[in-house]
Amino acid sequence: MPRFPDYEWPAGKQSAFCFTVDVDAEMPWMWAHRDKPMSGLGALELRRFGQRVGIHRIVDLLKKFNIHGTFFVPGGIAELYPDLLPMLVENKHEIALHGYFHENAKDISDAEFTRALEQSIERFEQQTGITPKGFRSPAWEMTPYMLDEIKRLDLYDSSLMGFDHPYTVRDVTEIPVQWTTDDAVYFRYTGGGVDLWPPSPPGPILDGWLDEWSMLHRNRGMFMLTVHDWISGRAQKILMLEKLLQKVTAESTAWISKLSELADHHRAINNDIYVVDGNLSADFSNHPARKVS
Amino acid sequence: MPRFPDYEWPAGKQSAFCFTVDVDAEMPWMWAHRDKPMSGLGALELRRFGQRVGIHRIVDLLKKFNIHGTFFVPGGIAELYPDLLPMLVENKHEIALHGYFHENAKDISDAEFTRALEQSIERFEQQTGITPKGFRSPAWEMTPYMLDEIKRLDLYDSSLMGFDHPYTVRDVTEIPVQWTTDDAVYFRYTGGGVDLWPPSPPGPILDGWLDEWSMLHRNRGMFMLTVHDWISGRAQKILMLEKLLQKVTAESTAWISKLSELADHHRAINNDIYVVDGNLSADFSNHPARKVS
Amino acid sequence: MPRFPDYEWPAGKQSAFCFTVDVDAEMPWMWAHRDKPMSGLGALELRRFGQRVGIHRIVDLLKKFNIHGTFFVPGGIAELYPDLLPMLVENKHEIALHGYFHENAKDISDAEFTRALEQSIERFEQQTGITPKGFRSPAWEMTPYMLDEIKRLDLYDSSLMGFDHPYTVRDVTEIPVQWTTDDAVYFRYTGGGVDLWPPSPPGPILDGWLDEWSMLHRNRGMFMLTVHDWISGRAQKILMLEKLLQKVTAESTAWISKLSELADHHRAINNDIYVVDGNLSADFSNHPARKVS
Amino acid sequence: MPRFPDYEWPAGKQSAFCFTVDVDAEMPWMWAHRDKPMSGLGALELRRFGQRVGIHRIVDLLKKFNIHGTFFVPGGIAELYPDLLPMLVENKHEIALHGYFHENAKDISDAEFTRALEQSIERFEQQTGITPKGFRSPAWEMTPYMLDEIKRLDLYDSSLMGFDHPYTVRDVTEIPVQWTTDDAVYFRYTGGGVDLWPPSPPGPILDGWLDEWSMLHRNRGMFMLTVHDWISGRAQKILMLEKLLQKVTAESTAWISKLSELADHHRAINNDIYVVDGNLSADFSNHPARKVS
Repeated sequence: MPRFPDYEWPAGKQSAFCFTVDVDAEMPWMWAHRDKPMSGLGALELRRFGQRVGIHRIVDLLKKFNIHGTFFVPGGIAELYPDLLPMLVENKHEIALHGYFHENAKDISDAEFTRALEQSIERFEQQTGITPKGFRSPAWEMTPYMLDEIKRLDLYDSSLMGFDHPYTVRDVTEIPVQWTTDDAVYFRYTGGGVDLWPPSPPGPILDGWLDEWSMLHRNRGMFMLTVHDWISGRAQKILMLEKLLQKVTAESTAWISKLSELADHHRAINNDIYVVDGNLSADFSNHPARKVS
Repeated sequence: MPRFPDYEWPAGKQSAFCFTVDVDAEMPWMWAHRDKPMSGLGALELRRFGQRVGIHRIVDLLKKFNIHGTFFVPGGIAELYPDLLPMLVENKHEIALHGYFHENAKDISDAEFTRALEQSIERFEQQTGITPKGFRSPAWEMTPYMLDEIKRLDLYDSSLMGFDHPYTVRDVTEIPVQWTTDDAVYFRYTGGGVDLWPPSPPGPILDGWLDEWSMLHRNRGMFMLTVHDWISGRAQKILMLEKLLQKVTAESTAWISKLSELADHHRAINNDIYVVDGNLSADFSNHPARKVS
Repeated sequence: MPRFPDYEWPAGKQSAFCFTVDVDAEMPWMWAHRDKPMSGLGALELRRFGQRVGIHRIVDLLKKFNIHGTFFVPGGIAELYPDLLPMLVENKHEIALHGYFHENAKDISDAEFTRALEQSIERFEQQTGITPKGFRSPAWEMTPYMLDEIKRLDLYDSSLMGFDHPYTVRDVTEIPVQWTTDDAVYFRYTGGGVDLWPPSPPGPILDGWLDEWSMLHRNRGMFMLTVHDWISGRAQKILMLEKLLQKVTAESTAWISKLSELADHHRAINNDIYVVDGNLSADFSNHPARKVS
Repeated sequence: MPRFPDYEWPAGKQSAFCFTVDVDAEMPWMWAHRDKPMSGLGALELRRFGQRVGIHRIVDLLKKFNIHGTFFVPGGIAELYPDLLPMLVENKHEIALHGYFHENAKDISDAEFTRALEQSIERFEQQTGITPKGFRSPAWEMTPYMLDEIKRLDLYDSSLMGFDHPYTVRDVTEIPVQWTTDDAVYFRYTGGGVDLWPPSPPGPILDGWLDEWSMLHRNRGMFMLTVHDWISGRAQKILMLEKLLQKVTAESTAWISKLSELADHHRAINNDIYVVDGNLSADFSNHPARKVS
């Protein structure tokens, strides 16, 4: 617990801001039904909205502010929508990995993880000629094995929350996420009796995001926004994102960057400072404070 | 994923606004108890408020703004309250289908769906002489079979969320709904230990609806409001709806229309543009990215 | 579904406002543990706050505004805290019935309901010399049997939600409640992993209550506030209630009344208008719209 | 139920304000996995943020306002992060007990409770030379046995909610907590499908805390703030706490105190007034109001 120093940004920059999109569309729904028949169209149409409409509204919004984002795309979505990756590349956004079928880490074996990862890279290369540089785990869960694989393939990761700026875990460059700046936590709602809470109206959440950004900017941190095509492509969320970007882009010392740029920066400048081991906690079943004989 | 163009509205109109009412009253409660005895009066009285009081307050509100809505009425509610459909017709509102007993799609067979639908049409015709033109699924769930039946009977559907303007799915005209503009998501609360979240106060939800409307109007979209007699007939919700209608009706380029008018417009103007197939997702159990031997 | 006319209030009054307290303290917790041992003090101390502190703050608040409320007290709470009923009577508040052990209707037989009711009346008479005039069901659930017993004992009831002004159900005068103006829905939180949602901050709920009151007053309705000693006796809720009462008491045409006064008014003026049968729904298992052979 | 008088504070003070930190970091996660293997790093990294970053931001914030808090630290966290207790002592904060492994009272035997407590005291003494004066139960649950042990070791307790100022229960000085001024209730969110509600944005919660403080100050009460290193160390919560402290520290008659100071005050001044027995409720299975033969 030696205290970590303030993070060091490029000259003239005080903080970073990342606009990322987890382009899930209907893939989590397909994954949830991988072993049982699908009958209804409700959740499916709700999610297909993401590729029909939502993704374009998000790309338009970024164009309006002349900024570029990082889009994490499951291999299966690239397969279903072959125009998607080329369209994103043409608009100068970064494309990165997000599983093949949006597989939840707890549902698959290590070998299945590796296979999904390699098949996704292959599809990205085939559709765009570009080898992706980063990975985000579908449900933001990572294991030591997964991190080691990410390192083997020379990728950065963006799935963990151990800092609110880039760091290094098990030798992997980590560009951390945060639940409170993820749209799905607040706005995902699919009906059918499975939701545990209702979707929030956007106003209070935007206020929280603006607070988060103000304080992170003051503290030399990094704001990681994560949105989803089928969630934030809806009208009221586009308006909310517009208001957020108006605030952030007005601040010239905020570095609005793609994640691969952040990863390059981290490797060049801070390689030996923000380093943690990324081990699981030690077993304490025999600790003297625990058992009473 | 070719991009769909902006929707085309009648001359002078930039967006559409639909006021719809799912007139459920106590029918979902009766359906939930179809195979077990009912003992308490609490939820029943709460829902009967809808036909005693709520429906009149909603009709009064629409009269005050001189607009007309679309009321989806389960056949069983028309049977229990035989004055309802004639009263709605007299006030120039559209009446449309909503199952017979508010049957959830997942609880019934295809044949039971068809029988409930046909019996509802018969009751509507018997009570009003009018053949309804549209259908909304009780829990907003549709299957390919249901859509095909809707087409066979030459109805429009209003149950899916694949766009935020009219579209065509399996050859059926779809006037889409949206969870975030449905009162039940936020305000339904019946007590007895079954609710997973509390009712929201109306203010923040109204703010979200106004945001949704502003952006949909800017984007040439369609705002689909859905309320329920027993939920939004309560005082604070009438006040909230009054504030929403004050805003919307002040905008002359917003087309406030019944769903059958929207369906006619869609069939006349856009029949071959916003077309999707409405198939379930393909099975991927043998996809090379999935299994590791 | 003939439309019910506006409710008729005493001369000079446009609406009614009722301040009611369900004085539950630790009784629901004791009822929940009636068949299993209690081990922890956490929820118990949280609830005992109600009789140590909360009830006095609420009584002080009403005194400050010179208004009188109706306090529904379980017989068992009167037994545990024998100073309570006399203190309430001394302050000119109405005391009314609320079960003996805050028994949930679904947990007890008809005979147990009657016995708890009669034992509570006996305790009230013994402690105060006053025979209570009204009853509210512990979890706001009523059965036809319970209503018939309430009628046999010549009590009014305040447990159902079929109107938002007094009415008559199964020959019983009903002074209705409403979930959205009950503090427990929003603020009850006991910890220990049993809560399904967090307590709300008071601001947005107060806004909703003010909206509800404004529209009910405009519509000639009745605002039924329900608070609990151990919940609304907390500081931030007292402040919230103070703000609500400042608004309501400033309106001279709002009739702030005890429930027994409302019941007397209803019996005198409206005895034959707002009458509903209070039967359970008919069985429809053999309805022709349901089954497909 | 004799009414308790207003609490008596030191000369010139009208209320008390306590800033407490439950320094849990990853310990509850380790406890939850004490009997099953841990596989993922997600929740672990989220919580390790607390010791890497969060605790320092909280200490900095208190330094900025020149106030001192009370930090409840599980023995196991002191063991994992041996610089923590010395750093807190150096900054003049109080360090107090919080279990060894953040053991939930319902998961352990009486003997295990005592052992964890004694091992924690030993570790505190070993690392700092200081014997802690107070205890807070990990999940804010206490039993009569636990209170008796706290008394045997001459500690104060801060786990119960029977008043909103200090009191005496089973001869133990209790500095009470409150759910509504605990950050975890509103902001804890760990993902992985275990949360029952989303994290709140900070604005509405801050409003509630300011209301609570205003009214407690008016009523001569005590505001007990509880935050967690891994939750409130996040940027938007630091901003929220800054706003709260700006308000509170501007009021010179608010006594901002460590819990051991409050406990000393209570013992010196109020030892015989706010006394409750802290017994479990009596069994009522044979009460005449309950059973019907």
